[in-house]
Amino acid sequence: MEIEVLEGVFDANEIIARENRSLLDARGAFMLNLMASPGAGKTSIIMKTLEGVSGDLKCAVIEGDIAGKVDSEKIAATGVQAIQINTGGSCHLEAKQVNTALERLNMEGVDLVIVENVGNLVCPAEFKLGEDLKVMILSVAEGHDKPLKYPLMFSESHVLLINKTDLIPYTDFDIEALEDTVRKMNLQVEIFRISCRTGEGVSDWTDWLKNRVRG
Amino acid sequence: MEIEVLEGVFDANEIIARENRSLLDARGAFMLNLMASPGAGKTSIIMKTLEGVSGDLKCAVIEGDIAGKVDSEKIAATGVQAIQINTGGSCHLEAKQVNTALERLNMEGVDLVIVENVGNLVCPAEFKLGEDLKVMILSVAEGHDKPLKYPLMFSESHVLLINKTDLIPYTDFDIEALEDTVRKMNLQVEIFRISCRTGEGVSDWTDWLKNRVRG
Repeated sequence: MEIEVLEGVFDANEIIARENRSLLDARGAFMLNLMASPGAGKTSIIMKTLEGVSGDLKCAVIEGDIAGKVDSEKIAATGVQAIQINTGGSCHLEAKQVNTALERLNMEGVDLVIVENVGNLVCPAEFKLGEDLKVMILSVAEGHDKPLKYPLMFSESHVLLINKTDLIPYTDFDIEALEDTVRKMNLQVEIFRISCRTGEGVSDWTDWLKNRVRG
Repeated sequence: MEIEVLEGVFDANEIIARENRSLLDARGAFMLNLMASPGAGKTSIIMKTLEGVSGDLKCAVIEGDIAGKVDSEKIAATGVQAIQINTGGSCHLEAKQVNTALERLNMEGVDLVIVENVGNLVCPAEFKLGEDLKVMILSVAEGHDKPLKYPLMFSESHVLLINKTDLIPYTDFDIEALEDTVRKMNLQVEIFRISCRTGEGVSDWTDWLKNRVRG
């Protein structure tokens, strides 16, 4: 008698992530999965990114939060299509939630979908959403010792945005040490130094992103 | 035929948390469960707290991290007993891990056990460890909009330490608005404003803590 292997059951998230991928490919859309601790500047970076690519890329934003809709309201106020997912307690987004959001968005002509994951430096790294790029943010205020404490996030991300560089003079943050550590853990990582407050470094990131989406 | 109810199975964590409580009571020890986002200043606050209560309270520290032991080494260097729990990927501490640590510590004469939870503003709030007080830290750099996004942590905590107040002049952080929001969600919360960098406000917190532990 043949024994049934239920391997796929444990990969339900991965199957739906692949569905999301097909859905995006059919539309010719690129998707970012933006991850960071609470308060690292995810929403501010989204606002700056939307500004930086406007005119070149048509965007939509999927906002993931445990509760509330302050972030999606901020985005919608700029005229960009935004949809809010409330996880109701869960500490990360799963592919199914993004799938529902993608079905509800008007994807006509959309080039870039930015998903703002729940503020958490741990669990979101474990769940694929069907994204093209995993982008993580580390704020200067969090300290340069974080990669060794949260290794999965730093080693899985394609892009690291170091945000709030304007605070460097008021902290002990060693940006060279941070970048060295991350590059040892993650050979392919692209790193950008950004201050959403002063705008410094933002265009390096958005120019690179435009090339990736168009390329 | 009587039907077996397996309710208890789902409360395994709570049962062990109660065991921890008995173990601490038998020793006359008080336990803090310290929770915050990555980089909010958990280890710095522990260092300042140990300094502030030294001479009055004998302390021990249980350090929870996904990986690494940088924090427990920092604590041990001050001469305070420290033990490291590596969760190996899990985003919060559970009562069982703290139980193992409590069994291994030399609890002779220990008045105060400080548990540093994994850096995460979500999941740790859901798991009781047998603590006397849940203490959370919010760093000024994280922004004053966090309570509505992470409501469980803010409503469950007995104490809120607002850290890095020295950064207020360089941010848009509205400390009054933050405190108002938190007090509406959590009527019993004690709030302290602290800067580990300048030392401001630290003694208010440690004096209050000494009274709670001794009382």
